[in-house]
Amino acid sequence: MAPPVIDVPALTTLLDGTYAEIRNLTRKRLAEYAGFLDEALELDRATYRERVKEIVVELAATGQTGLGFPVAYGGGGDIGASVAAFETMAFGDLSVLVKVGVQFGLFGGAILQLGTQPHHEAYLADLVRADLLGCFAMTETGHGSNVQALETVARYDVEAGEFVITTPSDSARKDYIGNAAAHARAAVVFAQLEIGGVSEGVHAFVVPLRDAKGRVLPGVRVTDDGRKIGLNGVDNGRLAFDDVRVPRANLLNRYADVSETGVYSSPIDNPDRRFFTMLGTLVQGRVCVGGAGINASKVALTLAIRYALQRRQFGNPGGPEELLLDYGLHQRRLFPLLARTYALHFAQEVLAGQLHGVFSATEEVDERTRRALESRAAGTKALGTWHASRTIQECREACGGAGYLSLNRFDALRADTDVFTTFEGDNHILLQLVAKGLLTDYSSSFGELDQLGMVRFVAGLTVETVIERTAVHKLLERIKDVLPGGDDWDSDSGLRDPEYHLAMFRWREEHMLAGVARRLKRGMDSDMEPAEVFSRCQAHVIGAARAHVERLVLDAYVDKLAALPDGPNKEALNLLCDLFALSAIEADRGWFAEHGRLSSQRSKAISREIDELCRRIRPIAADLTDAFGIPPELLRAEMLG
Amino acid sequence: MAPPVIDVPALTTLLDGTYAEIRNLTRKRLAEYAGFLDEALELDRATYRERVKEIVVELAATGQTGLGFPVAYGGGGDIGASVAAFETMAFGDLSVLVKVGVQFGLFGGAILQLGTQPHHEAYLADLVRADLLGCFAMTETGHGSNVQALETVARYDVEAGEFVITTPSDSARKDYIGNAAAHARAAVVFAQLEIGGVSEGVHAFVVPLRDAKGRVLPGVRVTDDGRKIGLNGVDNGRLAFDDVRVPRANLLNRYADVSETGVYSSPIDNPDRRFFTMLGTLVQGRVCVGGAGINASKVALTLAIRYALQRRQFGNPGGPEELLLDYGLHQRRLFPLLARTYALHFAQEVLAGQLHGVFSATEEVDERTRRALESRAAGTKALGTWHASRTIQECREACGGAGYLSLNRFDALRADTDVFTTFEGDNHILLQLVAKGLLTDYSSSFGELDQLGMVRFVAGLTVETVIERTAVHKLLERIKDVLPGGDDWDSDSGLRDPEYHLAMFRWREEHMLAGVARRLKRGMDSDMEPAEVFSRCQAHVIGAARAHVERLVLDAYVDKLAALPDGPNKEALNLLCDLFALSAIEADRGWFAEHGRLSSQRSKAISREIDELCRRIRPIAADLTDAFGIPPELLRAEMLG
Repeated sequence: MAPPVIDVPALTTLLDGTYAEIRNLTRKRLAEYAGFLDEALELDRATYRERVKEIVVELAATGQTGLGFPVAYGGGGDIGASVAAFETMAFGDLSVLVKVGVQFGLFGGAILQLGTQPHHEAYLADLVRADLLGCFAMTETGHGSNVQALETVARYDVEAGEFVITTPSDSARKDYIGNAAAHARAAVVFAQLEIGGVSEGVHAFVVPLRDAKGRVLPGVRVTDDGRKIGLNGVDNGRLAFDDVRVPRANLLNRYADVSETGVYSSPIDNPDRRFFTMLGTLVQGRVCVGGAGINASKVALTLAIRYALQRRQFGNPGGPEELLLDYGLHQRRLFPLLARTYALHFAQEVLAGQLHGVFSATEEVDERTRRALESRAAGTKALGTWHASRTIQECREACGGAGYLSLNRFDALRADTDVFTTFEGDNHILLQLVAKGLLTDYSSSFGELDQLGMVRFVAGLTVETVIERTAVHKLLERIKDVLPGGDDWDSDSGLRDPEYHLAMFRWREEHMLAGVARRLKRGMDSDMEPAEVFSRCQAHVIGAARAHVERLVLDAYVDKLAALPDGPNKEALNLLCDLFALSAIEADRGWFAEHGRLSSQRSKAISREIDELCRRIRPIAADLTDAFGIPPELLRAEMLG
Repeated sequence: MAPPVIDVPALTTLLDGTYAEIRNLTRKRLAEYAGFLDEALELDRATYRERVKEIVVELAATGQTGLGFPVAYGGGGDIGASVAAFETMAFGDLSVLVKVGVQFGLFGGAILQLGTQPHHEAYLADLVRADLLGCFAMTETGHGSNVQALETVARYDVEAGEFVITTPSDSARKDYIGNAAAHARAAVVFAQLEIGGVSEGVHAFVVPLRDAKGRVLPGVRVTDDGRKIGLNGVDNGRLAFDDVRVPRANLLNRYADVSETGVYSSPIDNPDRRFFTMLGTLVQGRVCVGGAGINASKVALTLAIRYALQRRQFGNPGGPEELLLDYGLHQRRLFPLLARTYALHFAQEVLAGQLHGVFSATEEVDERTRRALESRAAGTKALGTWHASRTIQECREACGGAGYLSLNRFDALRADTDVFTTFEGDNHILLQLVAKGLLTDYSSSFGELDQLGMVRFVAGLTVETVIERTAVHKLLERIKDVLPGGDDWDSDSGLRDPEYHLAMFRWREEHMLAGVARRLKRGMDSDMEPAEVFSRCQAHVIGAARAHVERLVLDAYVDKLAALPDGPNKEALNLLCDLFALSAIEADRGWFAEHGRLSSQRSKAISREIDELCRRIRPIAADLTDAFGIPPELLRAEMLG
C-alpha cells in the first residue's frame, strides 16, 4: 500500500487548532531567542538566572505571557490563548517556560483567582508587566502533596489588625519555590489561618519578601536551593518567616475573609470543600504543565527521527550502511511514542478547551463540572509528563553518544522536564485524585474526602452503587452496543477498528474500577485499619485511574478523527491512532489476558499489527514530525549538521 | 511471620566476596574524597576536569587504579581485584570513575592486551603511574557500534617505515573520546590498516597527541565535545589526523604485524576472527561498566529508602502522617528494584570471577570459553546499566522535589550513568551479540559473522539444529527434570519455589530462541532481503538475548543461595530472590500468558505474592541497603539531614 502523501502545512494547522495564530506568534518569538538554547549551556547559574529573568521581562512586554489576565490589567482576556502560548513555549528554553509559569501562572494566577478586586488593582497590572515578580509559596520541606497539613501559621492579631506569618520548624520552610532565591519581591504564602487560637485551615496571603532594591525584608529568611537536576535558570529557594506582619487586607479573600475584629466568614461552610474549591481555581497550572510535557516530547521525537534518517549503521557489505530508521527495533522504539504524542496532543486540546469553557463562562459553572475538569487536568498532566520523561529518554538513547552531548538538546530537555512528574502535583497523587473522583462521582459532598475518607465512603456503598454512580455505567452500556455478540472480542477482523480499541479501553477501566471498589469494601469488612486497606489497594487505585485517563485520551483522538474529512492526512492520523491504541493494549496485554479479554492468538496478532503499522509509518515519519511545526532555529542540534 | 533479624556486617562480607579487603580499602579512599561530591556540583567545567585529573593521579599513586596491570610495571597483577576496586568506585564521583576507566581500562588495557613487550616496556609503567595520560580512540562520529566500518586510515609508507594516520572525512573524526579534549598525551587509535593499497582491516596504533607541555602536536586536530548530560569532569573530545606519521613500532602488534618491507602477517588467518579476537581482549571494560551501574543503583536505593523512612505524608487524622515506605505503591516501586540489584550483584560476581579465570589462566583458554565470557559480559553490562538508569530515575521520583535538588545526589548519579547504556557498546547491539552467540553456539567459525551473516547462517540450519547446538538444549532437559508432570506449571503451591522460577526463565529462553531461529529461516525462505529479515526479527532477537541473560542472573542468585548456611541472612536473601524472579515473571506475564505458560489465576497469584513479599521486606529494607556498605560520608544528601 502506498504511503499517504501528507500535506504538512495542513496537518500543522489541524494540530494548532483554534489558537493557530497565537502558536505561530509564539514560534516567531521563540525563534528570536533560539541562540539562547546553546548559550544557556555555558552560563554559570547566577548569569543563567539573570538572563532568564531578562527574557521573561522582555516577553511580558510583548504581551506573550499575559494572555490569560483581564484586559483591564494589561492582559489578553483569553484563557485558551494563554494555555496555547504557554504550551508552545516548551519548544524553547524550559527555564524561561517555568519562570513564566511561576510568575504568571502560579503567582499571578493565585492573586487573580483567590484575590478580590482590591488585590487585582494592587498587583495585577504590575505583575502582568513583570514589574512585580513574585512566587507561589505553598510546598514546604516536609509537606508537599498533603497541602492541608502545611505547618506555616498566619495568626490574626486583632489589636494590630495584622496577620503574623510564622515558620514553626525546619520542615515548615517553604521549599523548591521558584523566584524565591533571587527575584521575587512578594509571595503568595499558604498558611494555617489562626484566629484566637482556632485554626480555620489553609489560606493564602500576600507577603512582601524584598524591597525595591532587592534586599530581603526583616523577618524573612531566604536560602537558595542551589543546583538542581535541571531548570537552573530558575531561582528556586526556601523561605522562612519569623513573625512577619502583613495587613489584614493581604489575605486573598475571595473564598473567606476575616473582619477587623477577627470574625471569620466564608460563603462555603464546609472547610474541606472551601479548601478544595480554592485549590481548584488553580487548575490551569496543571493543564499548562501537561501541555508543556507533550510539546517537549515533540522536540525530542523530531530530533531523534531526523537523526535516524541520516545516521547509518551496519548493512549489506559493499553497499551503504542502513539508516537507523530502517531497523525494526528503532521503529518500535520511536513510533509508538510518536503515536502517543499525537494522541496526548488531541486529549490536551479537549482539556484546554474545557478549561477555557469553565473559566470563561458567564454563568456559574456547577461544581461537578469543575471537579471533572480538575480530575481530567490531573490525569492528563500525569500521563503527559510521564510520557515526556519516557520519550525524551528513549530519544536520547536512540541517538547514542550524540544524544549525550548537550549541544544536541536532549540534556536540557530531559533534565528540565524531569521534575514535571513531581511539581504541580506528584503524578501518583494526581492519579489518586482521579480515582477518588471516579469512585465518588465527583460528588460535591464527597469530593473533599481524603484518602482514608474515600476508603470509608466507598466501603459504605455496594459495588453496584459505585459503578452506577460513575460514568463507568454508561461505558458498559456503550460496550454492549459495540459488541452485540457479547463475547466476540477475538474475531480476526477489526484489529484496526476504533470501536474495538474503545471497547477494550472501556472494559479495562470499568473492570479495574469495580475491582478497586470491591477490594476497598473487602478490606474494610476485615479488621484492617483504613490506612492499611488503602496501602494494599494503592497500586490498583492508581491503575484504575490511569486506565480511565488513557480511555479519555483515546476518546479524544477517535472523536477528532471522526470529524475530519477523508484524505491522506486523515489516513496518516488513523495509522497513528491505531498504533497508539494497539501499543497501549500490547503494553497491558498481561492484564487483558489475565482477565480473559485477550487470547494468545489475538495478542500475538496485535504485536504483528504494531510491527506492520510501524513499517507503514516509516516513510511518513519525517512529515509527521515536521507537522509539529517546531521552528528550524529551535531544532539546533549539532548532530543534524 | 517475624522478619528475619539481619546480621548486616555479615551480609556486607557476603556481598563483598573474595575481594572484601580491596573493596574496603576503596571505600576508605572514596570517603576521603567525599567532600568532592558536593564541591563538584559548583565547579565550572574546566576546573572540574582539572580536579578530576588530580584525583585520578593521586589515586594512581596509591595503587588503587593499577591493580590489573603486571607487577613488573607497578601494577597489582590481579584482574579480579581491579574489577572489584573499579566497581566500588561507583559509590563516589562518577567522572573520577570514568576517567579511571578511560586511562587504565581502555588506554592501558589496549596497550596491555593488544601490544607486545616493547609496548609494555615503553608505556605501561608511565601510564600506571598516570604520568602518561592517554585515550582510546575507537568510535567515530559516523561509526560507533560497527567498528569494522571505521573510516580512519593508517597507510603503511614502506619508504619511511611509518604509518600515516588520516581522517578522510568529518564522519571519520574520533568522537566522544575521553581524555582527548585536554589531558591525553597519546591515543590508541583504531584505523583501517592499508598496505600498498590493500586494506587489512582495523588495527590499533599508538599515536602521540600532545607534547610534554600539553601542546597539541602538528597534524592533530582536537575539538572539545563540550558540555554533556553528565560526566563533565571528563574531557571528551574529537580527534582528527592530517597525515600524522608514527613509527612502524607503534602498531600494537600482538595479533598482527607489518614487516619493515610492508609484509603483513598474523597468527590468525581469518580477518574477521582476528578482529573479534582483538576486540575480545578488551572485554574487561564491559565487565567494569556493568558492575559500576549496579553499584550506582545501590547508592540511589539506599538514599531513596532512607528518605522514605523519614518523610511522612497523609495518614490518619490526629496521628502522625504515614511514612512513605509504608505505602504499598512506594514498596512496589522500590523493592523489586532492590531485589534485582541483589540479583545483578551476584550475577556480576560470577562474571567477574570468570573474567579473572580466563585472563589469569596459565594455559591457553579455548575460544569458545572466551566467546561465552564476552557474551556474558555484554549481556550483564546491558542489563546492569539499564537497571541503573531505571533504578536511579525511580528513586529520584520517589523522593519528589527533594530528589530534584543536586545536593541529594540523584542529579549526578542519573546524569553520569545515563551514557552507560551507550558506551562500551550500545545495549541493544550488545544483546544482538549475545543472541548471535546463542544461535551459533559461540562457534569459532561463526562467531565473527555480522548480523546478516548470522541470518544466513541460521537460515541454513534446521531449527532443531539451532536448539541442539546451543546450551538451550540442556536447559530443556533440566526443565523436564524439574517438572516431571510435564505440564504442572500452575499448581497452587510453589510460587516461591526457585525450581519453578528457573523452569519459567528457561522455558522462555528456549522458546524465544527457537522462535527467532524459525522466523529467521522463514524470512530467508521468502523473497525478502537478509537486511529486511533481520529488521523484522530484531526485537525478537533482542528479547531472546535478554531472556537468556536474565536466566543467567537467576541462576547465579539461586546457586549463591544454595551454598549459604541457613539463617536470617539467607532467609532475607531468599525473599529478595523470590521477589526478583516473580517480578521478572510479572513484568513479562503477557508473554507467558500468550505462550500458555501462565493461567489467569496464577498470574494474579504472582502479583499478590509480590505484594506480600514487599510487605515482608519492609521491616528489613534499611538493613538490606545498609549491607551495601556505602560509607556514610558518601551518602551525603541534604534531605537525610
